[in-house]
Order: sequence, then structure tokens, then C-alpha cells
Amino acid sequence: GADGDLYINQAVVFIEDAIQYRSINHRVDSKSLWLYRWYYSRICQWILSLTITIILALAFVEKPSSLTVTSDVRYRHPPWDPPCGLTESIELLCFLVFAIDVSVKSYLIGWEEFCKTKWLMAYILTLIVSLADWIVSLSFFCTETVRIRRILRPFFLLQNSSMMKKTLKSINSTLPEMASVVLLLAVHLSLFTMFAMLLFARTKDGQQDKEWVGYFRNLPDSLTSLLVLLTTANNPDVMIPAYSKNRAYSIFFILFTVLGNLFLMNLLTAIIYNQFRGYLLKSVQSSLFRRRLGIRAAFEVLCPLEETPANEQELCVSVGDLFQVLQKVEMDSRCKQAIIRSLKTSSCDRLSAAQFQKLFEELDKDAIKQHPHSPEYQSHFMQKLQFVFGHSYFGYLGNVVALANIISICVVLVMDADKQPSERDDFFLGAINCFFILYYLLEMLLKILAMGLKRYWSYPSNRFDGLLTGILLVLEIATFAVYGFPHPGWRPEFMGLLSLWDMVRLVNMLIVFRFLRIIPNMKFMSLVVTTLLDLVKNLRAFAGILVVVFYAFAITGIMLFKGSVVPMGNIRLSLQQEVVLLTFFYKRSDFLAFLNHYQAIIIYHLCCLLSFNLICRWAKIYFIAWWLISSVIWVNLFVALLLENFIHKWDRHCHRETLSDVEYQRTVELMFRDVLEEPTEEELMERLHQHPHLHLCR
Amino acid sequence: GADGDLYINQAVVFIEDAIQYRSINHRVDSKSLWLYRWYYSRICQWILSLTITIILALAFVEKPSSLTVTSDVRYRHPPWDPPCGLTESIELLCFLVFAIDVSVKSYLIGWEEFCKTKWLMAYILTLIVSLADWIVSLSFFCTETVRIRRILRPFFLLQNSSMMKKTLKSINSTLPEMASVVLLLAVHLSLFTMFAMLLFARTKDGQQDKEWVGYFRNLPDSLTSLLVLLTTANNPDVMIPAYSKNRAYSIFFILFTVLGNLFLMNLLTAIIYNQFRGYLLKSVQSSLFRRRLGIRAAFEVLCPLEETPANEQELCVSVGDLFQVLQKVEMDSRCKQAIIRSLKTSSCDRLSAAQFQKLFEELDKDAIKQHPHSPEYQSHFMQKLQFVFGHSYFGYLGNVVALANIISICVVLVMDADKQPSERDDFFLGAINCFFILYYLLEMLLKILAMGLKRYWSYPSNRFDGLLTGILLVLEIATFAVYGFPHPGWRPEFMGLLSLWDMVRLVNMLIVFRFLRIIPNMKFMSLVVTTLLDLVKNLRAFAGILVVVFYAFAITGIMLFKGSVVPMGNIRLSLQQEVVLLTFFYKRSDFLAFLNHYQAIIIYHLCCLLSFNLICRWAKIYFIAWWLISSVIWVNLFVALLLENFIHKWDRHCHRETLSDVEYQRTVELMFRDVLEEPTEEELMERLHQHPHLHLCR
Repeated sequence: GADGDLYINQAVVFIEDAIQYRSINHRVDSKSLWLYRWYYSRICQWILSLTITIILALAFVEKPSSLTVTSDVRYRHPPWDPPCGLTESIELLCFLVFAIDVSVKSYLIGWEEFCKTKWLMAYILTLIVSLADWIVSLSFFCTETVRIRRILRPFFLLQNSSMMKKTLKSINSTLPEMASVVLLLAVHLSLFTMFAMLLFARTKDGQQDKEWVGYFRNLPDSLTSLLVLLTTANNPDVMIPAYSKNRAYSIFFILFTVLGNLFLMNLLTAIIYNQFRGYLLKSVQSSLFRRRLGIRAAFEVLCPLEETPANEQELCVSVGDLFQVLQKVEMDSRCKQAIIRSLKTSSCDRLSAAQFQKLFEELDKDAIKQHPHSPEYQSHFMQKLQFVFGHSYFGYLGNVVALANIISICVVLVMDADKQPSERDDFFLGAINCFFILYYLLEMLLKILAMGLKRYWSYPSNRFDGLLTGILLVLEIATFAVYGFPHPGWRPEFMGLLSLWDMVRLVNMLIVFRFLRIIPNMKFMSLVVTTLLDLVKNLRAFAGILVVVFYAFAITGIMLFKGSVVPMGNIRLSLQQEVVLLTFFYKRSDFLAFLNHYQAIIIYHLCCLLSFNLICRWAKIYFIAWWLISSVIWVNLFVALLLENFIHKWDRHCHRETLSDVEYQRTVELMFRDVLEEPTEEELMERLHQHPHLHLCR
Repeated sequence: GADGDLYINQAVVFIEDAIQYRSINHRVDSKSLWLYRWYYSRICQWILSLTITIILALAFVEKPSSLTVTSDVRYRHPPWDPPCGLTESIELLCFLVFAIDVSVKSYLIGWEEFCKTKWLMAYILTLIVSLADWIVSLSFFCTETVRIRRILRPFFLLQNSSMMKKTLKSINSTLPEMASVVLLLAVHLSLFTMFAMLLFARTKDGQQDKEWVGYFRNLPDSLTSLLVLLTTANNPDVMIPAYSKNRAYSIFFILFTVLGNLFLMNLLTAIIYNQFRGYLLKSVQSSLFRRRLGIRAAFEVLCPLEETPANEQELCVSVGDLFQVLQKVEMDSRCKQAIIRSLKTSSCDRLSAAQFQKLFEELDKDAIKQHPHSPEYQSHFMQKLQFVFGHSYFGYLGNVVALANIISICVVLVMDADKQPSERDDFFLGAINCFFILYYLLEMLLKILAMGLKRYWSYPSNRFDGLLTGILLVLEIATFAVYGFPHPGWRPEFMGLLSLWDMVRLVNMLIVFRFLRIIPNMKFMSLVVTTLLDLVKNLRAFAGILVVVFYAFAITGIMLFKGSVVPMGNIRLSLQQEVVLLTFFYKRSDFLAFLNHYQAIIIYHLCCLLSFNLICRWAKIYFIAWWLISSVIWVNLFVALLLENFIHKWDRHCHRETLSDVEYQRTVELMFRDVLEEPTEEELMERLHQHPHLHLCR
């Protein structure tokens, strides 16, 4: 009946929630369920992600844009200036999508939950402010200077990812301790500044106080000098005048550096690591809870109430219902088949809660990837060939040949280093590369012969190898087609798309890149590389937050320093300084400019050198904030995560022998499998009874 | 009898070994025991330490020395040149002491143990080589250029400390993993270098290849550029020419920096931390074993063999013997009294092994420091005064006043920043400082009144406070005695030892320093500071090894670059470069020059700038080695230790409420108390039976 259909649909949605680790606190009536499945369908989520990407990418084409090939203002063409209304209309479309998103989300979780969710309220607020700013912008015909909505844009990215929200919460809880260390750093800095001002005071002898003139002229100067010393950017320079006057002055700087850099900065690492030690585990634990809760909720709604009034302890679900549910659920086909298979093999036609949970444990299991078998040849000769070329020593030989190729390229590079391009003879390099590429082709074909195409392709290292060999072959054939075969004095003029020299360079680069195939053969290296890959997976949330901060800083920088630096053709700077200045400061929207704090400090110094005093003060605060966030906090978070990942991985690596021929596709969840705690039935039921929309009668 | 005396003496030495955590594997006959106690007596060990200090300090007065006030060669006087034979004779004396040391040590452990001890053999070898070098030196009348014995000197420091030897062993066991990462770094570097050389190759257009000219001209140049990029010293500069040509080139540099700096370098931290996680615990555990072993050995030798032939299970020691032993043992008087007290309270006159061990557990206990009580006043008024000034709020008031003083000094500094020294008026600063110092004096006196002198002095913070207040008072009185009381226009000429301005500066610096008294009042700060102090304790061995490496590098540097750079008056350099060059490179024995890798890189670049090509290649290898050891390995070791210490401390801090008015004097041993495992009786007895000189009959 209709009720039965509703229950089936509820179970489907709950199981899908469990698979995706989503919260189950949403409306559960038929229409809402349809809306919910539609909202979380692949296409809808894809449209949402696309919208977020578009609105973030708008900054690259909007007015102070820097999307040009060269970064040197002296040569570059003026970037494309979109007409007023073009980017604005795209923005409006995006806002529309966001408005739909927020209203669907709010409706689905219901009013009660909505009041508890601060993120949704902030979402709505951001949308309203952005729309208001958009209207102001259009009414000024895009000539207004301050655009608040640009700074707000990264919020849309932030609110769309539950991992990022979780990470942000976690960072937030570390803030008090971090603030304490930063306070300690501030005390350290201010006490040493006072000391420095007393130590390097102005004297009557003008020759003697170079230190005072250079670095400690007044309070802001002294503070800046020591702050920059904390980043080690001006490390020997700042102490040279005092040190050349009296060696003992160096004690002051050494003390400052040791206390500040070695102790306090590393203490920050320790604190952040200490706070983040349990972070991954906790997050995985809560994911597990959501999964178990979803499965349990599905069980509860499927459980026919009227049939088991007598013995309450044995709530059961009929297998037929479950089959119906499973056919509707969207999930990994491998898992689905495994579940259906084990459902068929079990004889009983009713499942208890525990059996139900156990059935879905397939979801948590490692996806064991079995490589296809090698072909079995009849001929004795072929079997021998298969043995020889399927042997791991053949792979090692390939590595040795690749190394020989690298070395030969290196030798040619060293020999040709000082030659004029016109003197250069590409014959030698062309000939040996031709030989090596033929060998690579042969190796690939022999391996395919020995292993069979399917088995060959199932190894990632072979895929990498084969793809690169293919590209190399195509390039080489193209070269020969255009420039003929290599011969002494093979140095033809420019023809076609790329010159011969560029072709050869490209081939060489690809060969160098192909050399990375040795990585899986070295045990420690492969451990390191898998750690790094794991880290990249776990780091996505952090990277997202970094992008958010980065974006906000870049936009703020553009707004702050817009028009404050005028092009200066007649001020004499060294070429180096000129290029740095022109590259990083004049073009205000240069995103790369904010990549690291050294650059920030250089820009700051150049800015002060040219005495833009008012802007200089703002720039100082801006750059200190950027340094603190990007260099101090983010790098330490990264180190903490790396430590956590590596130590866990290393322990596993030492305890367990690697299984040959079986590759596990590891996820974060699986890494912590053995330490996770299963939620108890009471916890699950308590949470289910707190569900705002699902009213279980028991 | 004689045998009884021998046993008593043996027991005394074993107990002393246990107290000092020494090995008990030494000779145990009467004469050797006397020699052993003499060798480990305070005076002998002190003489040995002094000798090591002297031989290490010789480098400061030997010929290429730099013990001058200014480091600027243009102004400094030629350093004192000791006549040939002076330092050499001091050296000979030191060698004599070392020879006695090594022979006594070898004799005491016996031939069998000596053959197993590689350190002792290396010691003898070092002595022989040093003596041979010394003879060569004297026969050339001190004009020879290479002095090998100087590089060997730090070995004497190394072999004298068991902690340093242990740490070195521990570092040694980490080397394979570190080598793997360094290999990975090398692969990373070389692959990227080849990529860079192919990417930034010379082109036909001379204007376009600034990048090639500047950084990637040939293989050594490219390697150096990227290696320096790994230290972030040339971070934006190296990519500017390519970046200004095409923005996409920055991808190469970003990839290199992210992979090398962010991943591989931090991976090194992770690996070192992972290896050192158990280091402290293991070292403390082995110390505990040595202590238990010493006590047990003392028990075994005291155990009268003839009296208990029948029941072997009940080996006992008579209390009388133990009293005799205790009177002879040199140990902390507090512990000794505690042991004697508990010995007297126990009624039985025979002690079993377990009772014997339990008696000496007093050694492991925290030294609980009880502050003396405040005086009890009769008068009601005095009691009220005592309540008011003994209250913690009075201490907070003192902190507020100190803060006010700091702020007032800061204000004066800011106001006077740009004034000429002749315009400066010291009246205001003199007057407020006079007022504040009077307040400090009053605070000290009132606190002494409230707490009594003894109780006041028992707090370290009060000692710090009182001492500084005393010095400030003396300085202030001296100022008034010489320059009279402050009045407007108080700016007298130079009189006495220091000018008024210097006096005032000194007072101000002391006041800033005194402000540190707020530390214990802030919970998090005091946690951080105690962590740092603990760390300093645990870091002594590391610091020692650093000194050893430092010394060896400095001496090698002196020998390598001696006379290779001639003073160049006529080459035009910028003043900055000149000063750096003159300061750091020309005076070859400048120890500070090797303080950090940035300086090394600057020196290296200057050296290459001036094209001392032959020396340049050596300098490159030398500086890379120095960078790897000082910056990469040592800093990471430091971070690992800091993490270990901090996390342990933090856990303790969170678990336990701090006890008021009771201060524990924490040692490393106590920190790990709850995790240590007691050695079993079987382990102890097995080790005792392996003793090469003590032959137990059971």
C-alpha cells in the first residue's frame, strides 16, 4: 500500500544517507523524500559545484584582472575588460542557484533544525548582503570602488563542504591555545623591542649608531625589524652593524632568535600537533556513527509494526522488503552485488537488527582488487618467454635502462651547457633517444605479451609507463615526419608547430618524468609516496580552507592597495627591485603575489622604501596577518597532519607484511579500522528517538 | 675481619653506583675500590672537566684567533699572538691528564671489558694521534699549516659524557631512515634540476633567457639554485625572470617548493619524531635498571654466606652492616637521614632483598620542598598587615605597577626616539624610575614583613624580584651620589664609570627584565616556561653534540679557507656586502659565522661573486654539509624532543590538579615514573652473574 511504499522509500533514503555519511535529520514524508533524493542526485550536486567554481573564477576576468601571459607590466597587453553587466548577470544567475539551494536545504531539515543551524542562517545573510551589494553595483554602472560581495564569495565554497565545516570547528577549538602562544610571542617581541631600543640608542657619535639608523630608529621600526627577524628573512643583515661594533651585541640577537624561532615557534607546532592528534580519529568515528545510524533507521522503518506485538525483542525485517529497497538504492555496484549474494545464501527470510547491520558491513570493507590472470600459452617457447618477461628482473632491467637514458641526457646537457644555440648539434641526443624509445616500446609489448593486456593495464605503474611510452612514440614519429631521421649536423630550421629543439626538449622532459616509475620498486620510497598521497586525500578540507583564506586575502589586498602605487618610470631602482615591484605590487590582483611571506616582506619593504607612508601602515598589518595565517598556522597544521598520518602509517607498515598481488584501496576510514569503536544499540536508539520528523512508536 | 671490610666497601661502592646511575662492571678488590672511589670523587671529575674546557678553549687564543671586541677588520687591533710553545705546553698538560684518565678507566673495568669498549680504544687512538701531531707541531716551531689534533679535540668532550654517547647511539639508529629521506630529497633535486635545465635552456633570443643566465647556466649552477630554493633563501628571486616571461613557469617552482619544502622536509621531521618518541623513556628505563642493579649487588655482597646454608630462600642482611655501609656512602643528606630513620623504626634486625630494595626507594622519591611558615605576630594590627601584604592580590598589584613602569619607559622611548642626544632631558625618566624603585623596595620590605625573611626567600620568584630590586637600588643610589637628584634639565656631563644616560638605560633594562616576574602568575605561560626549562635539561646531551659538531666544523673551516681570501681594498662592493664579507669570511676563525645556513649561503655567494673558483667548490660542499647537519637534522631533532616533552607535560597537566604550596623538583626520571617498568629479580640476578669481577657463589 501507500504506507508500505513510504516505508520502502524512507529506508532507501536512509541507506543512501548511511553510504554517503549524511545526517538523517531531514523530513521523511513522500514528497520531501523525492525532493531530498533529487537534491542529492549527482546532477544537482554537480550544478551546485559548478556554480561555486564559476562565482569564484569570476575574479580572474573582473576588472583588476591579471590573466595575461607575461607578468611584466612593461610588455604585457592590457587584459580583457568585460563590459558592465556581463559578469554581473553571471553573478545573478549564481545567486539564483544559491537561493534555490538554501531554500531546499532549509525546507528539508525543517524549521526546528533550521533554527539550530547557524551555517544556514549565515548562508542566507551572505546571500542577502551579496544581492544588496549587487544592486548598488549596478545602480552605479559598475564604477563603485568597494565590492563587499567579492570578499564574501569564498563562503559559498565553505558552507557546501561538511568536511571543511568540521575542520573549521576543529581549528576553532585549537584557537585558545594558539592564541596563548601568539600572546607569548607578542610579549617576547615587545620586551625584546624595548631592550633593543635601550641597547641601540642614539649616541653622540654619528658614526657609531648605524644600527639605530638602520633598524631601531623608533618603536614601529624596531618592532618591524624584530618581527622580520622572527621570520629569519633579514637574519644576518640586522645584526651586522652592531656586531661589527662589538661582538657581544650578537648575544642579544642569538637570544632573541633561539627563544623566538627555536622555542616559541616550535612550541606552536607542538601545541597544534597535540590538539590535532585525535582529530582524524574523531572525525572518522563520527562518520561511522552516521553510517550505523542510517542503517538502523532503515531497519526501524522497514520493521512491520503490526506483526510483532507479542515478542518485542525480536523485531524483524522481511527479506523481500529488503530486496525491494536494495533495487532502488543507488550505490556502488560491487557492494550491491555482494549484499544481494549474501542475502540469497542466508536461508531465513527474516532478518534481525544485528543481521541487518552485518549485511551492510560490506560497505566498510576494503575493496580488494584482484588483478586478472596472465594468459596461459600452449607452446613451450611462449611459456618460457612469458616466464622471462613476466619476471620482476625484467622490470628492474627496464629501470636500469631508464636510468641510463637519464644519465645520457644529463651528460649531453652538461656538454651543451655553454654552447650557443646555433652551434648545438641535436644528432647525438636524437639518436640515443630514438634507441631508448624503441626499447621502451619493445618492453611494453613484451610485457603485454607476458601478462596479457588486461593484467598489464590493471597495474597503475604499467598504465603510467604505457601512456608515457605512447606519447613519446607519437612525438618521435612526428619529429621524424617533419624533420627526417637524425644525422650528424641535424639542426634544421623552425618548421611546423614546434622547433626540433623544442621537440627534443619535450621528449627529454617526458623521459625524466617516466623515470618516476622506479618509485614502487623502492620500499621506503613507496611508503613515503603512499603517505603523501594519503595526506593529500585527508588534506582536501584544509586545502579548501586555505583557498577560502587565500581568496579573501587576495580580494582584500586588491581593495586596499588599489591605485595606491602609481607607475614610476623615473625612480631609479635596481633592475631586480624594479621587476619585483612591478610584478608583485603594481598589478594589484596578482594572486601569486600572496603565495608566501618572504614576498610579502619584500613588497612591504619596497613599499616603505618608496615611502607610501599611509598605505605602508595598512600594508604592515595586512602582511603580518597574512604571515601569521599562511606561514605560522597553516604550515603547522600541515606538519601536524603529516605527523599524524606518517606515524600511523609507519606503525601499520612495521606490524604487517605486505600482501603480494593484492592491492587495498585505502581510505581514511579503513586506516583507523582497528581503533574505531562501534556505537552501542542504546546510543543509536536514543538518537533515533530524537529525530525531529521520524516518530517511532517504540 | 678483612673480608668483612671488603664486603662493606663493595656495598658502599655499589650503592654509590646506584645513586649515580653508573655501571657496576668494574673491579671489586680493595685497592681497585679505593681507586674507583678516588676516580669518581668530586675533585677528580672536576679536574677532568676543567681540562676538557681548557683544551677546547685553546682555539680562542691560538693563532688564527678572533677574540677582539669589534669584528670589523678595518678597525680592530691585531689579536694577541701567543709565543710558540705556550699553548702547546698547556696542551701537553691536558694530554697528560687524559692519559691518566684513560689508563685508570681501562684498569678499573679490566681487560675483558676493555676489549668490548670501542669508546676507550678510540680515546687511546685519539690521544696517540694528538701527541704525534703535537710533536710534529713543535718540531716545525709552530709554523705547520695543518693541525689534525684541533679537529680531534671535541672527542674528549664527547667521550666524557655517558648521556652524549647514548644520544649519539640513538641518533645513529635513526640514520638509515634519515638517509632514505635525504636520498629522496637528492632524487627530487636532481630530477627537478634536469627538468629546469630543459625548461630554461638557452634560446636564440638573448633577451629572453635571463633565467638561464642567472640561475641555470650549467649543471652545478642549476643544482645550487634549486638547493638554495630548498632553504627558501632565494625564494622569490629565482623565479622572477621566468615568471615575468610567462606566468606558467611559476608552476615549476611552486611544485618544487611544495614537494621539497612542505612535504619532504616535514617528512624528515615526522621520521625523526617517530624514531625519538621512545628515546627518553628508554633512556630513563635503563637508568632505573642500573640503579636497581647496584642496590641488588650491594645486597648480595652484604649477605653473609656462611650463616644461611640451610634455608636458601631467606637471604638476609643484618641491619648493623647496613648502618656501617650507610655511614660510609656519600649521598644526599636528606635521603640518608630518611633511610636511617626508616631503618630505625623497623623492628627486625635482618632485612630481606625486597625490604632492602624498598629502603632505597627513597632515592627515587620527589624532593618535596616545604616552604617555611610565616611568622606569627601577637599584635592585632600586625596580623592585619600580614593578611593584607601576604595576600596574592598584593602580588598582582606589584605586577600592575611593574607594567605601569614598563609603559612609562615605553612612552618616553617613543617620545625621545628622534631627539638628538644633546636635546634629551633625563629628568622625567629619572623621576619616575626613582618613584617606581622606591615602590619596589617598599613592596619587598612589606612582603618580608608579612612572610618572614625565610619564607620570602624560599620562593624563586621572590629571589628574582629581591635581587633585581637590590641591584636597582644600588644603581639608583650611585646615580644620585654622582649626578645629584633629578631636576628639569638633568643632563650632566660624563662623570665616573658610566654616563648618566648609560646609567638610566641600564636601570631601564633591569626594569624590563624584572617584568618577567609576571610569568608564574599566568597558568599557560608557566606551563610553557617549565616545559622549556625541562627541555633545556633534557637537551644538554644534544647541545653537547652540537658543540662537538660546531667545533669540528669551525676548525675545518679555518683550515680549509685559511689564506684563500686576500683583503681587497680596490674591489668595489656595496657597503653591505663588504661588511658581510669582511666580517664573516676574511677572519677565518669567526665562530659566529657558522651560526646559520643563511649566512653560509651569503658567504658562499659572495665567494663565488668574487670568483675564487677553486675554493668555491670546496666551500659549496662544506656549506651544504653544514646546512644539512645544523639546519635540517639538528633542528628536527630539537622539534622531536620538544614535541615529546610538551605532549607528555601537557597530558600530566591536564590530568592533575596542581598542589598548592608544595613544589616538586622534577627530574626526567620522575616525569616518567608511572610508565616505567620495574626490572624483575631474574633479570637482575642474571646480570649480576654476568659481572666480570664479582663472583657470587650462588
